[in-house]
Amino acid sequence: MYVVVTYDADSEERENIRTIVKKQLHWVQHSVYAGELTRSATEDLFRKLKSSVREARVSFWVFDRPPDIRQIGTQKDRESIFL
Amino acid sequence: MYVVVTYDADSEERENIRTIVKKQLHWVQHSVYAGELTRSATEDLFRKLKSSVREARVSFWVFDRPPDIRQIGTQKDRESIFL
Repeated sequence: MYVVVTYDADSEERENIRTIVKKQLHWVQHSVYAGELTRSATEDLFRKLKSSVREARVSFWVFDRPPDIRQIGTQKDRESIFL
Repeated sequence: MYVVVTYDADSEERENIRTIVKKQLHWVQHSVYAGELTRSATEDLFRKLKSSVREARVSFWVFDRPPDIRQIGTQKDRESIFL
């Protein structure tokens, strides 16, 4: 599966979400993480987020296959998605 | 195609990007738009963004099929993705 997690959150929840997702996905940009996971890892990640998120808005996207990702613009990466 | 656009941008570019993407995609959350487009509409949207973005970081994701999208958390929608 290819999983994308995007979130709007206040600082405390943002840090919790980031701690959870960065173990299994890579950073893409501010409040966006993505990566390939097995089906069981996908469900595990979803359960972890669901049990820890209260006020934030988290979108958990599950795709069959990885996308064609194109980057536009010149803003420097904080962490490269190509790592 | 299923297209997701996520962006980090300063206020002026953010408004430009928003103006372009909201014509063809629906709002999901802060700095995230998505929707189904034909292949030609996808390329048209990509060209428009590429020609107008300078400093921002825009990720343009193209998938073959729509995702399973799950929402977590209680934060109110500013605009519903179910519209």
